[in-house]
Amino acid sequence: MRIYVIFLVLFLFSSAFSDETSDSYLLPRPLVLEYSSEIVTRPKKADEEEVNLHCTSWRFAAETNNLAPWKTIPVECADYVKDYVLGKGYVTDLERVSEEASVFASSVEFSGDGKDIWIFDIDETLLSNLPYYIDHGFGLELFDHSEFDKWVEKGVAPAIAPSLKLYQRVIDLGYKVFLLTGRKESHRLITVENLINAGFQNWDKLILRSAHEQHKMATLYKSEKRDEMVKEGYRIRGNSGDQWSDLLGSSMSQRSFKLANPMYYIP
Amino acid sequence: MRIYVIFLVLFLFSSAFSDETSDSYLLPRPLVLEYSSEIVTRPKKADEEEVNLHCTSWRFAAETNNLAPWKTIPVECADYVKDYVLGKGYVTDLERVSEEASVFASSVEFSGDGKDIWIFDIDETLLSNLPYYIDHGFGLELFDHSEFDKWVEKGVAPAIAPSLKLYQRVIDLGYKVFLLTGRKESHRLITVENLINAGFQNWDKLILRSAHEQHKMATLYKSEKRDEMVKEGYRIRGNSGDQWSDLLGSSMSQRSFKLANPMYYIP
Repeated sequence: MRIYVIFLVLFLFSSAFSDETSDSYLLPRPLVLEYSSEIVTRPKKADEEEVNLHCTSWRFAAETNNLAPWKTIPVECADYVKDYVLGKGYVTDLERVSEEASVFASSVEFSGDGKDIWIFDIDETLLSNLPYYIDHGFGLELFDHSEFDKWVEKGVAPAIAPSLKLYQRVIDLGYKVFLLTGRKESHRLITVENLINAGFQNWDKLILRSAHEQHKMATLYKSEKRDEMVKEGYRIRGNSGDQWSDLLGSSMSQRSFKLANPMYYIP
Repeated sequence: MRIYVIFLVLFLFSSAFSDETSDSYLLPRPLVLEYSSEIVTRPKKADEEEVNLHCTSWRFAAETNNLAPWKTIPVECADYVKDYVLGKGYVTDLERVSEEASVFASSVEFSGDGKDIWIFDIDETLLSNLPYYIDHGFGLELFDHSEFDKWVEKGVAPAIAPSLKLYQRVIDLGYKVFLLTGRKESHRLITVENLINAGFQNWDKLILRSAHEQHKMATLYKSEKRDEMVKEGYRIRGNSGDQWSDLLGSSMSQRSFKLANPMYYIP
C-alpha cells in the first residue's frame, strides 16, 4: 500500500511543481501513523471481502448519481475510500476518463468559427484537493468551509496529471476552454495563480460564483452559465467534472465526462 | 463461485415463477462446462488483480457514461463481467438502486391529482435477459437481433426481484406507472404476458416502438415520449433504467435511477 502512496504523490506533483524547490510540507504526513494503527484494527479476510463488496456498490451508486444527497462517506467505507484514492484505482479511473475525452475531442469536426468550447470544472477535475482530504478523513469529516477556504488560499493544489494532459490536448485541437467553478469570486487571484503554477494556461474564461450566487444550487448555477454560453453562440462540445452538478441541467454538452470522486457530493 | 450461480438463479426465479411447475429449461446449463475449463485457463494472482483493476475501471466508465458507444465488452473482461453478473456484485447493486429509489419515492409529496408518474424501462430493468446472455457470452458476442427476438418471443424473462419490489412499492404509494421500452409494438402481447407472469401488474401505460420509430436513437425516442407525458400534465418523479438513453435527453425525471448493466450499450 505504501508504495501506492509514494507513486501517487510522485504522480500528482511531478508535472505540477517541477520548478518548486521544496514541497515537503505538502506530503501526507499523518498517513504513516494512520497505517500503523490500521494493521491492528483491519477486519479479517471474509469481513474485508464483504466490506469491499458493500463499499464498491456504494461507490458505483455514488458515481452513477443514484444516491440521495450525502454529506459524508459511510463510516464503514473509510478505509475503502482511502485505499481507492491513494491506490491504483483512482489513478486508473482518472487516466481512462482523460483518454476517453481526448478521443472524443479529436473526433469533433470543427467549423473553424471559434465557437467550439470545452468546459472544465476545477476542484477534483483540474486541481486535486487530495492533500487537504488526506488531513480530513477522505470525506468522513463533515465539510468545513472555513478550513477548506484556508487550504484554497494557500494556492498549492496540485494538477490532476491526466486532466492536464487532456486540457493541453483540447487547447492544441483548437477548442476554447471555459473554466466553470463553484469557487467564489474572491478566490479568483489565488485560483489563477494555483492553476498557472500547476501547468494550466490559455483558458478563455474563468467563471466563479459571484456574491449573490453563493447559495444557488450548483446544478442551477452551472446550468445558467451554460445557458449564457449557448445564447452567445457557443457549442459546448465537452464538459469535464467530478460532480453530476457539473454536468446535468440545461444546455448540457454534447458529451459529458464524469471524473471519479468518492469523497464528497455537491448537489 | 458455483454457490453464487445457484443463489442468483434462485433469486431471479423465486418471486417471478412461483406458480410454474417446470422451468428447468431456463437454467444456465452451459455454465458448468465453462467453469470447468476456466479452472485451467485462469490467470495467476498478480495478473488477476491487474485485470480486476482494469475491468473495474472499464465498468465504472461504462456505468458513468464516459465511454464512446460500444458494441461488445472488452475481451479481457469477459470473465470479470461473467463473475460480476452471476456473483454477488450485480445483485448487491440492483438491491441498492431499488432501495435508493424506494426511499425517494416515499419522500415525494403528492398533490393527489393522479399526475405523479414513475417510468420504468423493461429489459435489464424489470425483466432480466440474463438467461439469454448466459448463452451468448455476457456481451462478448455482437448483438444478434433475430436471436434476441426469438428469446423475447418465448416470453420467459424472469423478474429482477429488487425491481419488482420497487415496482410494487411505487404502485402502493399511488404513482402511475408508465413502461417505456425499446421493444417493438409487435412484441406487445408477449411482453404483457411475460410481465404479468413475472409478477408485474397495474401499469398505466405500456409504450413500445412503433414501426416508424425503429431506427430512431433510443435517447430521442424516449425523450419524445417523455415530452408527450409532460405536455399531458404528468410530473415525471422517477425514472428507472439500465441505459443512460433511458434517462438522459429532454423532459428528464426529478430523480433518475441507473441500474447496472455491464453487458450491452444502447445509444
